[in-house]
Amino acid sequence: MSYGFMGKLLRADLTHGQVTSEPLRDDWARQFAGGAGLATRYLYDEVPPGADPLGAENRLIFMTGPLTGTPSASASRYSVVAKSPLTGIWGHANSGGTFGPALKRAGYDGIIFDGISPQPVYLQIVDGQAELHPADHLWGTTVPETEDLLRAGGPQGLTIAAIGPAGENLVRYAAIMNNKHRAAGRCGLGAVMGAKRLKAIACAGQEAVPLADQALFRQTARTQIDLLNESFLKVGFDAFGTNMVADMVNVRGGYPTRNWQMGRFEQIEEVNAQAMTDKVLVEGVNCFACPVVCGRGTEIREGKWQGHSGEGPEYESVNTLGAQCEVSDLNAITMANYLCNDYGLDTISAGSTIAFALECYERGILTPEQTGGLELRFGDADLVIDLVEKIARREGIGDLLAEGSRAMARTLGGGSEHFAMNVKGLELPAYDPRAAKICGLGYVTANRGGDHITAYVEGPTFIDVPFLLVEDSSIRDPFVAEPQEARVLVDMENALTSLDAVGGCKFMGILLSAEDLVGLIAAATGWEFGVEEFRQTGERAYNLMRAYCVREGITRDQDTLPGRLMSDPLPDGPAAGMVIDRETLEMMKDAYYEFRGWDKASGIPLPGKLRELGLDDLVDDLWAGR
Amino acid sequence: MSYGFMGKLLRADLTHGQVTSEPLRDDWARQFAGGAGLATRYLYDEVPPGADPLGAENRLIFMTGPLTGTPSASASRYSVVAKSPLTGIWGHANSGGTFGPALKRAGYDGIIFDGISPQPVYLQIVDGQAELHPADHLWGTTVPETEDLLRAGGPQGLTIAAIGPAGENLVRYAAIMNNKHRAAGRCGLGAVMGAKRLKAIACAGQEAVPLADQALFRQTARTQIDLLNESFLKVGFDAFGTNMVADMVNVRGGYPTRNWQMGRFEQIEEVNAQAMTDKVLVEGVNCFACPVVCGRGTEIREGKWQGHSGEGPEYESVNTLGAQCEVSDLNAITMANYLCNDYGLDTISAGSTIAFALECYERGILTPEQTGGLELRFGDADLVIDLVEKIARREGIGDLLAEGSRAMARTLGGGSEHFAMNVKGLELPAYDPRAAKICGLGYVTANRGGDHITAYVEGPTFIDVPFLLVEDSSIRDPFVAEPQEARVLVDMENALTSLDAVGGCKFMGILLSAEDLVGLIAAATGWEFGVEEFRQTGERAYNLMRAYCVREGITRDQDTLPGRLMSDPLPDGPAAGMVIDRETLEMMKDAYYEFRGWDKASGIPLPGKLRELGLDDLVDDLWAGR
Repeated sequence: MSYGFMGKLLRADLTHGQVTSEPLRDDWARQFAGGAGLATRYLYDEVPPGADPLGAENRLIFMTGPLTGTPSASASRYSVVAKSPLTGIWGHANSGGTFGPALKRAGYDGIIFDGISPQPVYLQIVDGQAELHPADHLWGTTVPETEDLLRAGGPQGLTIAAIGPAGENLVRYAAIMNNKHRAAGRCGLGAVMGAKRLKAIACAGQEAVPLADQALFRQTARTQIDLLNESFLKVGFDAFGTNMVADMVNVRGGYPTRNWQMGRFEQIEEVNAQAMTDKVLVEGVNCFACPVVCGRGTEIREGKWQGHSGEGPEYESVNTLGAQCEVSDLNAITMANYLCNDYGLDTISAGSTIAFALECYERGILTPEQTGGLELRFGDADLVIDLVEKIARREGIGDLLAEGSRAMARTLGGGSEHFAMNVKGLELPAYDPRAAKICGLGYVTANRGGDHITAYVEGPTFIDVPFLLVEDSSIRDPFVAEPQEARVLVDMENALTSLDAVGGCKFMGILLSAEDLVGLIAAATGWEFGVEEFRQTGERAYNLMRAYCVREGITRDQDTLPGRLMSDPLPDGPAAGMVIDRETLEMMKDAYYEFRGWDKASGIPLPGKLRELGLDDLVDDLWAGR
Repeated sequence: MSYGFMGKLLRADLTHGQVTSEPLRDDWARQFAGGAGLATRYLYDEVPPGADPLGAENRLIFMTGPLTGTPSASASRYSVVAKSPLTGIWGHANSGGTFGPALKRAGYDGIIFDGISPQPVYLQIVDGQAELHPADHLWGTTVPETEDLLRAGGPQGLTIAAIGPAGENLVRYAAIMNNKHRAAGRCGLGAVMGAKRLKAIACAGQEAVPLADQALFRQTARTQIDLLNESFLKVGFDAFGTNMVADMVNVRGGYPTRNWQMGRFEQIEEVNAQAMTDKVLVEGVNCFACPVVCGRGTEIREGKWQGHSGEGPEYESVNTLGAQCEVSDLNAITMANYLCNDYGLDTISAGSTIAFALECYERGILTPEQTGGLELRFGDADLVIDLVEKIARREGIGDLLAEGSRAMARTLGGGSEHFAMNVKGLELPAYDPRAAKICGLGYVTANRGGDHITAYVEGPTFIDVPFLLVEDSSIRDPFVAEPQEARVLVDMENALTSLDAVGGCKFMGILLSAEDLVGLIAAATGWEFGVEEFRQTGERAYNLMRAYCVREGITRDQDTLPGRLMSDPLPDGPAAGMVIDRETLEMMKDAYYEFRGWDKASGIPLPGKLRELGLDDLVDDLWAGR
C-alpha cells in the first residue's frame, strides 16, 4: 500500500448490520490521489444508474486523502460522495475541522455505507475496531446533543460526524455536520445518511499516518506553514474570516440581494465582517493543523437570542440567510445559522430556498392558503428563523421548502422557475455572475450543480486573489466574457479537484503552487509525483464525475443558468444593466467543452479524452448507442 | 494643453535668482505621461554628459503627473530627477504625502532648478506667484524646524518640501523631505538641493486640476476607491503598514541581517509589524486621497528616547537601521529613523552604509585610528543613532560614511568592495536576492542603481502578491532563475514606470489593472489612451533613462551585483547555501537585454528600439563612434 494512506476501507452494510474491512484499491488511490475522485470511482461502479438517492442501492462514501491528518498546512479535509437527493446526480460535500484526521487515526481512509438500517444506528470506530450501535436514544436530537450524548457515554477522545433532525426528516439539503459546527453541507448528503438511518459516526484512535519520508515531509510542511503564517491571506482571514469578502463582492455589484433581484445590499455595513467583529465575534477558530484562523467562534450578546453561541456564520450563510431574504439583523442571521448547524441544514440551500419562497409569496405564486396563513415577507428576521425550524422538522409550509427551490418551482409553477436560483437543483452561492461572467460558466460546469468552490473563479474576479496553484488564473475584465477564459476555469477545476482530493483546503491554493504541493504529496506517499500528474489526477476525477452525471441524464442542455441571470439585468451598482445572455453563455460553453476535450453537441467527454485519462471502461457507458 | 496638467513649468535660475514660468512641453507630457520620464527628457537635453552632480550645470527637476492631485486613489506622488551625487548616473526619487498635489494647486506641473544660489534661499509659490526668498535663518535647521518656521512666517496653507542638515552638508545620500516625515529619499537628491543652496520649496494654492471629463473621472475614480477600500491590500496595510512584509521576507530567508551575512534575523519578533503595533504605533496615516492607510504615526513610549514622535519606520528602515546593524531594539530603530527624517537622510543608504562600516571595523579594514577611537560594533543601538547624527553633520568618521558604501570601499580597500552592498553606488534595499533570484536581476537593471521599487518583483516573490497591472507577474520558483522570467521583470519595469509617471503609488499596481488605469488617465487628460500606449509610455521612459546612464558610461559590465551575493552562500534559512552565481546572472541579463531590444554585448538600447519608441535623437548619442 502507498504511504500517506492507512490502506483500509470500512464497508458498512446497514441492511444487515455488518461492518467489514477491506484493502483500499491502491491503483485507484493513485489514479485519483484520494478524496472525492477515489470515492466516486467506487460510487460509479457500485451504484446503478437511476438508483433512488434515498434508497438502499445508494452508497454514502466518506473518503480522506493522503495529506489528511498529516502535520501539514490545512490537511484537515474529508469528502462525502453519494447520489444526491437534491439534484439526482453526482453529490459531493467536503468539510474541515478534525473529523477527517480522526477517521484516519482510527485506522481507515474511508467508509462505504450501503443498504438501510432497520432502526437508527451509529458507527463507532475505535483503534481500528468498528461497530454499529443502536441510536434510538439519539434520534430526534440536534447535532450538538448527539455529540454530547455520544461523548458522555463513549470511549475517550471521540470525534463525531452526525446528522440532525433535518437529515432524519430527509430534507433534501440536509448536511452532515462534524465538530458540531462544521458542515459537509451541499447536495443533501445528510438526507442520504438519514434515509439509511445512520445518525452518526464516532471515531477515536492514535494511529499515525504513515509517511514515506518523514523528515522530508516535516521539513517541507514546516516551510509551507511558515510561509502561510506570514501571508496576506492569514492577516485578512485571521482578522475577519470568510465574511471579509462581503464588502468586496458588494462593491462589485454582485452581492445577491432579495432573491437575486439586486446586486448591492444597502445595509451591508450591518452584516459585513466589521459588523461581525463588533457584534458577535468571540475568537477565531482553525481546522486541524491549519495556520489560518478563518473560523469565527461567536455568541449573540444582546436581544432575544442573547446567550446563544456557536460558530459562524460564514460569508455564504450571512448572505443567503441575510441579504437574500432582505434581513440585516446580524444577531438574527447568526441565530438562523446556529439553527441550521444544530438541525443539520446546508445554509446556502436553506437561505436561498427561503428567499425563493418569499418572492413566490410576493408574486402570489405561493398563497396564504398554502402557507397556513403564514405571511412570507422579505425583511422579516423572525420569519426566517421560524422557517429554518419548519424546514428541518418538515412542519407546515416547511415540508414544501424542504424539497429545495427546483422541486418547489415544479410544484408551484406560475413562471417561478425563472427565479428559482439553482443550477441542476443545487442552489447558487453568494456571487452574482452577472457581475463576473466567468463565474456563471463555473456554475454550469461544476459537476455537483450550482457551486462556486469547485473552481473558485470568484477568487480572481470578485476578490482579486489569483491562485498560485494554477499557471495563470487571471481574468482581465470580469464584466466581459472571453472564450479563452474557459481555459482558466478548466485549470482551476482540475487543480482544485486535485487539492481537494489529497485532503487540502482550497484556500491554500491561493498561496501554495502545484510545485509546493507535489513536494508534500511525494514526501507523504513515496510516489514519484510531479506537477503533470497532479494536474492529470484532477482532470481524471473531473471527467469521472462528469461521466457519472452523464449516465444520470446530464448533457449540454442542462448546463444552463436560471432565467433571471440570463434575462433580468442587475438594477444597480457597477454591473447595472448586465445579464449573461444565452448567446454569451453558449459561446463560453463551446470554448469550455473544447478545452475539456468534450463533445460540443452533447457536452459528453469524448472517447479519446477518456482513454487518455485511463478511463477506458467509461467509453461504452457514455457512447454505446449514441 | 492637455487636461490633467496645469500646463506650466517653473524655471528657477538660482545663480541669478530669477524665476520664470514656461509652458510645459505638451508633446513630451504625452510621450511620457508626466512624472520622471518627462523630467528626464528635460534632464537629458539640458545637462551635458560628465556634469558635476553638485555643480551649477546639474538640474534638479520636480515633476508631477496628470493624476497627481486629482480625487482618485493614491494620486499623491511627485518625482525628483537629477544627476545623482551618490551614483553619478540618472538620479530619481519619488514621494507621497501632499506636496505633489500642493504644487499643482499652486499652479505648476513641475519646477526645474539650475545654477547655484550665492546664499541660501527657498522658493515660495502661492497661487501661481513664485519667488525666491533668503533662507539664511533656516540654514542649519532640521526638516521639522524648517517647516514650522516657514509656516509660522508665511501665508496660510503652505505645504513644504525641504532638506535638513544632511542635504546642506552634501551627504551623498541626503533626502528631500516633505510633510516633515515623507522622503523623496534615494540617490542623494537632497545633496543636489543643498549644493544649489536651496533649503525648501513651499506651495499654497487653490487651483483645481483641469479634468477632460469630470463626471466620468469621478465615477471611474469612485469605483476604484470602492474596490481598494474592500481589498486584502487595505486590510493588511491598514493593520500593519509596510513592515508587515518583515515576517514574510524573514521566513523566506531573505531578510538582510548583519550586513547581508545572514538571511534570517533571530530577533525578528522584536522588530516585526506586531512589535511596531505593540510598542510605537499611535495611528495610521495615509497620503492625499488614498484609501489605503499604510503610514504609521508613532511615538516612543519608554526608555531614553521616550516622548519623541513622528512617522515610521517603514519596512526598509526597520531592516537597514535594525537587523543589518544587528540592532533589535525597536525604540532605538524608531529613534534612528526619526533622526534620518529630521536631518533628511535616506534610511536605506544610511543604515546600509553604517552596517558596511561595522563589518569593515570588525575585519580591521576600518581602524580605531580612523574612527577617532569610536568602537564600531554590531548590535550597538546607541552607536547607530550616534552615527546617523555624525553622518548628517559630517562629524568625525561620519564624514567618510557620508560618501556612501561604494566610495568608502574605494577609500578603504582591503577587499571591502566585496561586501559593500550597493549596485552602481546605490545601497540595496531589504530583500536578499539570493532567496529570490529575479530580484537580483531587478537590482542590476534598475536605472537608478540597486533598487527594488523600480520593478517590485519582490511582490510576486517574497510576499506572494502578484501585480494585476501587468499581464502576468508570476514567478514559479523564486529560488530558481529562469531566463523567461526576465520578461516579467521588463513588463513590471515598464508598467510601474508608467504608473509612477501619472502620479500613482506603485502599491496600487497590485490591485489596479492597466485597463483600470487607462480609463482614469483618459478621463483626466482627454487623450485616447489605451493599454498599449500605457505600456509603451513606460518603455519609452525606461529607455530614455537607460540612455542617460549609458551616456554617463554605464554598459553591461556595470550591471552587476556585489561580490557577496555572487559568491557567499546564505548560511541559514530556506535559501541556505544559495548565491546568485555570475553565470546565472549573465544568463538572466542575456534574456533581459533580448526582451528589451538592447544590444547584448553592451547593454545599450539598439537603434531600432529607440526609433520604435520615437527616441530617434538618442541614436547618435549612444551609437556614434561605437
